[in-house]
Amino acid sequence: MATISVPATVPSPAEDCEQLHKAFSGWGTNEGLIISILAHRTAAQRRVIRDVYSKTHGEDLLKSLDKELTRDFEKAVLTWTLGPAERDALLAGEVIKRWSPANRVLIEIACTRSPEELLTARRAYHDRFKRSLEEDVAAHTSDHFRKLLVPLVSSFRYDGPEVNISLAKSEAKILHGKISEKDYSNDEIIRILASRSKAQLFATLNHYHNEFGNPINKDLKSDPKDEFLSALRAVVKCITAPERYFEKVIRLAINKMGTDEGALTRVITTRAEVDLKIIKEEYYKRNSVPLDRAIAKDTRGDYEDFLLALIGESNA
Amino acid sequence: MATISVPATVPSPAEDCEQLHKAFSGWGTNEGLIISILAHRTAAQRRVIRDVYSKTHGEDLLKSLDKELTRDFEKAVLTWTLGPAERDALLAGEVIKRWSPANRVLIEIACTRSPEELLTARRAYHDRFKRSLEEDVAAHTSDHFRKLLVPLVSSFRYDGPEVNISLAKSEAKILHGKISEKDYSNDEIIRILASRSKAQLFATLNHYHNEFGNPINKDLKSDPKDEFLSALRAVVKCITAPERYFEKVIRLAINKMGTDEGALTRVITTRAEVDLKIIKEEYYKRNSVPLDRAIAKDTRGDYEDFLLALIGESNA
Repeated sequence: MATISVPATVPSPAEDCEQLHKAFSGWGTNEGLIISILAHRTAAQRRVIRDVYSKTHGEDLLKSLDKELTRDFEKAVLTWTLGPAERDALLAGEVIKRWSPANRVLIEIACTRSPEELLTARRAYHDRFKRSLEEDVAAHTSDHFRKLLVPLVSSFRYDGPEVNISLAKSEAKILHGKISEKDYSNDEIIRILASRSKAQLFATLNHYHNEFGNPINKDLKSDPKDEFLSALRAVVKCITAPERYFEKVIRLAINKMGTDEGALTRVITTRAEVDLKIIKEEYYKRNSVPLDRAIAKDTRGDYEDFLLALIGESNA
Repeated sequence: MATISVPATVPSPAEDCEQLHKAFSGWGTNEGLIISILAHRTAAQRRVIRDVYSKTHGEDLLKSLDKELTRDFEKAVLTWTLGPAERDALLAGEVIKRWSPANRVLIEIACTRSPEELLTARRAYHDRFKRSLEEDVAAHTSDHFRKLLVPLVSSFRYDGPEVNISLAKSEAKILHGKISEKDYSNDEIIRILASRSKAQLFATLNHYHNEFGNPINKDLKSDPKDEFLSALRAVVKCITAPERYFEKVIRLAINKMGTDEGALTRVITTRAEVDLKIIKEEYYKRNSVPLDRAIAKDTRGDYEDFLLALIGESNA
């Protein structure tokens, strides 16, 4: 369900590095050449290219890119070129520094990655920041949000398909009870959402809907302006319907007065090798406009070309 | 700092398996033979022996041992034969089922293992129980203890040597403030103890001692009967002085009316390949009796022989 296209015959990493080096050389930068290489290589291939590049040219490829490119295009290429774990670590690090209750990136990383992917991102966070993800989250957030975010980013959920039905029933009842009392930051709500396996949570939330009449996210909408309620809904949505969650992030990023390039870049680069194909379908269903057309309308130049290449809609 | 001795020339795993199988065969079991093999193999060697045994004899070695051995000796051999991660997962699983506020095993596992070892144990817990360690801890504990134990077992501390001195100072002050107010289960105390790297905590706790006159554990002793205070002291001790923590567990296990074989077996089997040599030295310093003599006095038969072999004090 990835969207990137990799050529049938991939040039050797050494050739790719030479081409990239050529793209940086002389007067001006050949952005098209950069896109034609990097947007069409998998994470594993990009890692090898980075290794070979730093051995051949004595400089990290990311540093060369950083020198040559600018603005949104630069940000997108750098973010994309990183491997998934390092990328998540950097995204989390950025967001922690300027965290606000309206920010959903930590929830997104904690709840849409697989348990093993989240661990790998936490390890990359150690390497990059010399601290743990959870200690930085704990130190930069407070109150209800800290109570929710620390266990979410620390979780290592069981990833198997087993479901305990009687547990699902009893925990659906707990959730409903606390939500009815408007005790949204109750320990039990957070414990259930932050620790149970995704399969178990599906069963619990299905039972909630069947037994109490509403999907849980409808009951969590009593005050649409409450950021904590909105964070809880994001947790539920990231776990149960990640593609619809990401569709909405893109929709809001594009529909804003002035595109939110940060969000757009983040979703496209983090999902292009995962489920962007489904996100595109969701986008079309919800907006009756193909995602590539929406992006083309809202962005331009190399940044536009690069995003379109990643979503698999260009000949670059 | 391990205590087990491995022969200069180790028999092949196939030979070990044949000898073990012989020990189980015929009338009665040859416990001495079992000890002479398993107590003198590293975790990696025991894993290969288990693999070869199950291929050759169509049964898990642990199952054969379970059939042949009994009581404390059986428990010790089985616990020892497991690899460290699986052993921690099982120890945690056992303790969670019958958890009580006086139990320190979860703290011990969370705070004396390296961050990567704790992760591996959490992964082994998934494999064994089809649930996550943290969800089971959260579901079986409550109140202050849950607030402390869930982040401890979920932690993936940064493991590097970097220390932020101004942070150490400010967090020592926070700890002292909350402890002075007797607000022991305060979020900040738990956040600091459960998330900071060991190197950072050393600096913080040193500063605490220097600045406020007492080691933190002295200030956490205002009510010696309060189990939560005792749990906090165990966290501090497991992080800052694991060998002295383990010495005390052994001392209390032996000095009890009726030895606490569970605790004795747990410490000897989990530390024999790690730091039992230092624990032995601590034991001698604190009790003026060598650990082997104390164990020999308090245990007997095959169980005694096995423990002595693991602590490196027998010719078995």
